[in-house]
Amino acid sequence: MIERALELVRGLVGTERTQGVARQVGAAALLGELDLEPGAEGVSDDELIARLGAVIEATPRTATRRFWNQLFGGRDEAALVGDIVASALNSSMYTYKVAGPHALIERVLTDRMAGAVGFADGEGLFAPGGSISNMCALVVARDRVRPEIAGGGSGGDRLGVYTSELCHYSIEKNAALLGIGRESVRRIATDERGRMVPSVLEQAIVEDTARGVVATMVVATAGTTVLGAFDPIEEIAEIAHKHGAWVHVDGAFGASVCLSPTKRELMRGAERADSVSWCAHKMMGTGLSCSVLLVREKGLLTKSFAQDASYLFQSGEDEYDFGTRSIQCGRRNDALKLWCAWVKQGDTGYAARIDRLFELAGVCVRMIEDDPDLVLKKQPESVNVCFTVRGASSDAVCERLLEEGLAVVGYALVDGEKVVRVPFVNPSMTEEDIATLLGDIKLVAGELRAG
Amino acid sequence: MIERALELVRGLVGTERTQGVARQVGAAALLGELDLEPGAEGVSDDELIARLGAVIEATPRTATRRFWNQLFGGRDEAALVGDIVASALNSSMYTYKVAGPHALIERVLTDRMAGAVGFADGEGLFAPGGSISNMCALVVARDRVRPEIAGGGSGGDRLGVYTSELCHYSIEKNAALLGIGRESVRRIATDERGRMVPSVLEQAIVEDTARGVVATMVVATAGTTVLGAFDPIEEIAEIAHKHGAWVHVDGAFGASVCLSPTKRELMRGAERADSVSWCAHKMMGTGLSCSVLLVREKGLLTKSFAQDASYLFQSGEDEYDFGTRSIQCGRRNDALKLWCAWVKQGDTGYAARIDRLFELAGVCVRMIEDDPDLVLKKQPESVNVCFTVRGASSDAVCERLLEEGLAVVGYALVDGEKVVRVPFVNPSMTEEDIATLLGDIKLVAGELRAG
Repeated sequence: MIERALELVRGLVGTERTQGVARQVGAAALLGELDLEPGAEGVSDDELIARLGAVIEATPRTATRRFWNQLFGGRDEAALVGDIVASALNSSMYTYKVAGPHALIERVLTDRMAGAVGFADGEGLFAPGGSISNMCALVVARDRVRPEIAGGGSGGDRLGVYTSELCHYSIEKNAALLGIGRESVRRIATDERGRMVPSVLEQAIVEDTARGVVATMVVATAGTTVLGAFDPIEEIAEIAHKHGAWVHVDGAFGASVCLSPTKRELMRGAERADSVSWCAHKMMGTGLSCSVLLVREKGLLTKSFAQDASYLFQSGEDEYDFGTRSIQCGRRNDALKLWCAWVKQGDTGYAARIDRLFELAGVCVRMIEDDPDLVLKKQPESVNVCFTVRGASSDAVCERLLEEGLAVVGYALVDGEKVVRVPFVNPSMTEEDIATLLGDIKLVAGELRAG
Repeated sequence: MIERALELVRGLVGTERTQGVARQVGAAALLGELDLEPGAEGVSDDELIARLGAVIEATPRTATRRFWNQLFGGRDEAALVGDIVASALNSSMYTYKVAGPHALIERVLTDRMAGAVGFADGEGLFAPGGSISNMCALVVARDRVRPEIAGGGSGGDRLGVYTSELCHYSIEKNAALLGIGRESVRRIATDERGRMVPSVLEQAIVEDTARGVVATMVVATAGTTVLGAFDPIEEIAEIAHKHGAWVHVDGAFGASVCLSPTKRELMRGAERADSVSWCAHKMMGTGLSCSVLLVREKGLLTKSFAQDASYLFQSGEDEYDFGTRSIQCGRRNDALKLWCAWVKQGDTGYAARIDRLFELAGVCVRMIEDDPDLVLKKQPESVNVCFTVRGASSDAVCERLLEEGLAVVGYALVDGEKVVRVPFVNPSMTEEDIATLLGDIKLVAGELRAG
């Protein structure tokens, strides 16, 4: 049966560049079309492959040149190779005894990434996604200001978390989950480019401290979800540290710019932060998920996440028994896909990839500026291009594009106005692909205006 | 390049039954042997495949008949097919817009599993591993007794969590992470079979309540890590509910017995619980990770995990926008592998699989009982067999087996004594494989005795 599956994968990899996204069908209709319930009795290999084929047929294609919806997309073939091999090996990353060379690979990659952000003596670990990486950072920061909470529970202190008003939603969500509370998160105003204003941050911390709040963590966002803006990390770190707060850089989207000598400047000051989240499944092109939490100081992850389990940790290679520094116990091997991609293209390949993404965003901006029907909302801070279409609302345009199977692309609010957001995370996109997208957008906008 | 990777996978799938586990090399030596650092420049496809091949060669094989170390192992081929296809499709499970049929599949499976534990109107969601599933359950339980914490933070109330002294380590760890505190976890005594004693539980809750502790959650373990014991869920649920506490069943290991009409009895009373964790990557044979958290009451996950994100949730299919009920944002597709396995073998196939695992454990018990050199520690409660070897310590035996590449198997403490723990989670194991393992154990014990 594995041969048949490999055939399916081969088909996907070979054809996606030339395919449209899947036709969009509502959930109720799709449920009626597909045969999804496992039966009382099993089925033949042929039957399984047929049913799986129908599912594949109905799946939105995230690697086509018409997928512009998320902060991920495209297909790095070396990464796919690594992920498929990881599935076949089915290692669990908690101990060296079981993970063997994959624990070493995880270490090589997190050391490399720690070095790229400027943590010379740092450490890191893979976690399932940027939200959980951010959550783990908040645990470490809390344990630093109030080490007694992990043992005795919260004593009811008010802990303050400071973040940009344009931060990812995981920041408030994590504060709620951890019992710190959503209301303990202060959203700091941003400037016209979407970057946190340091003076407003400092004022907020000073006010709160006077009220007895313990300034616990300041989150600088490197690559906001909609605008792709980078907070001024250096200024933020200086203020935060002056007031005793942990500095976390949410670089889930943007930390990859550290790989480009020309773009690294956006992360200036990252080496002064205490922790950084970084998702390789966004700009670095691996499959989901491939996220890393980096901390500047070795040993901090173990301090917050260690737990005795003599039945598990028995390799005598404590340094590589990563279960003691993870929020997880059993853990999928997310490292091998990134390793394959990195070995294949090298540092220079990754630098070129990042530069190419910025270049494509620039091409898109010029096309928009040259087109009387399109209005650029702002000059992009990095690789996200936000714009509106004259005489048509952005949400209606995006929905119509999806209905007609022309493109998957999302809208978002910028300064109270709905805009089309096009992120550049897939370097296989070409100028022609951009022209096609913008052409299709104008086409459906015309249809919408015509009623 | 994908062709070459498929060749590697084909090699793994075709040969593992007949292979030994990888030779065991210390981390320092392995680091010296392998070429793991990505270079400044990229490499050819040939070079990447060669380096990947060397990594595969050095990886402990979790699907061989000599891997007995964890609560996972073996190779369900249909599940591997599903996981490989999931990697190639690279869907993110947060919205119907992007996940399409995979959101429907996730729903079909979680509904099926909720039905199997007896939650007629429940819901569920995949989470990356049993530890995080357990953590999410604790968040939901806390939000029920103290809904104000998510907003305003902990007010310093002491929340009580009650669990078996043999519980998984994630219970205390999660209490620490969430700010409830390790010390808020009371470990309840177990009987000689490893099952929580209900009367001791009730006494603890009564004492704590008198001290002002809010009884928040009682965790019943279904399948303890070492003994595979099942707490008496029905009695525990009755006591917990009488005192207003949430009942969570940590069935990460054991909930799969619900699939067998003859073994389901071990989970008696599960339908009265409020939530259940269930890992399909253990007894159900999928790759890591494939974990589900089920709650008895629809809507509870959304209540604890929803967060606004207008740039993301725009499909108009709210019921399938699972990002609003997950701790994660971007999320790998862990459902497809389980779906493939379940469709392939059907309910009856899964029932037979579970029964076979128990049968194999029984075979192992009889071989041990018939052997004067081996001493059964306890009659197994489910599929874990724990025993000692006369005249040799269990940890030395396990380490020696690993050094000689004969088997990967772990030791654990039972009533203060180190035992060899052999879990039966891989139905491809045969009586001959068990005889080989026990023979090798006696062999290395002999070598150890001879010094």
